[in-house]
Amino acid sequence: MVVVLAGGVGAARFLRGLTAAVDPAAITVVVNVGDDVELHGLRICPDLDSITYWLTDLVHPEQQWGRADERFTVRDELERLGHEPWFTLGDRDLALHLHRTALLREGVPLSTVTADVAARHGLALRLLPASDDRVETRIHTTDGRDLGFQRWWVGERAAPDVADVEYRGAATAQPAPGVVEAIERADAIVIAPSNPVVSIAPITAVPGIAAALRSTAAPIVGISPIIHGRVVRGMAHRLLPAVGTAVDAAAVGLAYGARRDGGLLDGWVLDTADADGLERLHAAGLAATATATLMDDPELARRLARTSLELVGVDPAAAGRG
Amino acid sequence: MVVVLAGGVGAARFLRGLTAAVDPAAITVVVNVGDDVELHGLRICPDLDSITYWLTDLVHPEQQWGRADERFTVRDELERLGHEPWFTLGDRDLALHLHRTALLREGVPLSTVTADVAARHGLALRLLPASDDRVETRIHTTDGRDLGFQRWWVGERAAPDVADVEYRGAATAQPAPGVVEAIERADAIVIAPSNPVVSIAPITAVPGIAAALRSTAAPIVGISPIIHGRVVRGMAHRLLPAVGTAVDAAAVGLAYGARRDGGLLDGWVLDTADADGLERLHAAGLAATATATLMDDPELARRLARTSLELVGVDPAAAGRG
Repeated sequence: MVVVLAGGVGAARFLRGLTAAVDPAAITVVVNVGDDVELHGLRICPDLDSITYWLTDLVHPEQQWGRADERFTVRDELERLGHEPWFTLGDRDLALHLHRTALLREGVPLSTVTADVAARHGLALRLLPASDDRVETRIHTTDGRDLGFQRWWVGERAAPDVADVEYRGAATAQPAPGVVEAIERADAIVIAPSNPVVSIAPITAVPGIAAALRSTAAPIVGISPIIHGRVVRGMAHRLLPAVGTAVDAAAVGLAYGARRDGGLLDGWVLDTADADGLERLHAAGLAATATATLMDDPELARRLARTSLELVGVDPAAAGRG
Repeated sequence: MVVVLAGGVGAARFLRGLTAAVDPAAITVVVNVGDDVELHGLRICPDLDSITYWLTDLVHPEQQWGRADERFTVRDELERLGHEPWFTLGDRDLALHLHRTALLREGVPLSTVTADVAARHGLALRLLPASDDRVETRIHTTDGRDLGFQRWWVGERAAPDVADVEYRGAATAQPAPGVVEAIERADAIVIAPSNPVVSIAPITAVPGIAAALRSTAAPIVGISPIIHGRVVRGMAHRLLPAVGTAVDAAAVGLAYGARRDGGLLDGWVLDTADADGLERLHAAGLAATATATLMDDPELARRLARTSLELVGVDPAAAGRG
């Protein structure tokens, strides 16, 4: 069994490869909910939905998030009703938020709703939100504002400088049912090439998940979301400095840290463009390798998934039978 | 001041005429909420919205409800997600439900939300829901089922025979703020040509509204929704027999009853096709007249509004200055 800690687009592209390398039925994905947002009364889970849309080819191929062939009639009407259109909801996308929110209002936990949505989309792997409790990534800006992540990122285009990032609710949140068990029983755990600050940290900030990651016998391997000092997409370059980490592939791996020193990782995969960082990683006690990490087609993603598992001594075929 | 007790389409068409006959600023419309429905977690108020769409020319002209140039992307997606498409929500319409529901969830009362929606649409008259409390019209069928009104009407095309109609919650509901005051201060009260059983009765079933109607000094005039034994639109013919009323223009007026006998009405307007009923109405102590009640264009609706007010001795121009 393989467990993946995942954010949105980067993780989704990686999962497209992993599902080709490993039997999807053997994959559990623990998905960030820190950047979820409530808008017009709807619970929006961008990371869960990005993964769902990517794995079902519903995703908008150029935009890389949201739905292909999307329409915006509801957004246009909401604007006519006076709503500030800072966060665009497409009509197709909105139907999923309506479906999810109606179930949540009935008291169905997010993990159950997520399983329902995955089943309705025919997903063969298992998606779990990190928690059924609300964990909210808050951006504290240097000008003293306390913004929800989406408000800072989408609403303000990540322009305000970041003083601090808070995972509100994480300290008292419980892991969603199945998360701890999956981590305990895994053959390998993969940290997807997602934003360390707002995709992975809100997951590991849940104490029960952090404890399970510390105690699992499974090796933990991560993939750098930074290539040659640049983010592949997103805004990690605006956030890493705020948590004292350089925008550098090896530095991100070192920030996760080696398990022998109380860190998270057994191995770290970076791009060939960052091979000069391998020495620092090895010196820190990490298995590390440099390979092609851009996942422009599913075959490249499949190879990256294989390489990542093999780096920590896991045979993808054997993991798929686990 | 003129107060109108109103359902949906029939009332909306009448109001298009009344606003031409009387200064809209002098009109308060008390609108049925008994056929509101909660769907996908959204509060849908068909009668309030029909009136809003008609008075702003947003209404679908042939269908006579919902929005013109409507799209159905969200509905199609919800169907893909497994939802039974028994109640069609258009995308444009849905935006209004989202707006309303988000405010209601914040604890804003429906009457305040309604004022907000009316203002955003530039309505010159005042719309008030009958109550901020939930009043729910339930259809008890002869085969023993207890159906929400929309489920019976839209979901089952009014096919199941009706044993009884219940206005759940009405007995303990409070009139929305402003309703009682408007009735007390009115120069005239008009019962729109709406369904007596599921549009008007759920309003008058609220005890505070019934009491205000009993005690007001203003004359009360109603317009028949039945022409020559047929409903102009809708399903009143399926409901009137269940409450012991014939599907007949004069019979509906007599069922409302004359005020001298503890009923609701001072006057009743029916179509020229039903002039043979005038004698029975006069005999019951009602002012009554026969005129053209089909409102196929706004001018016919304007004349009907004038005739109705004049029947109970109210000068439309004077009422508009009230």
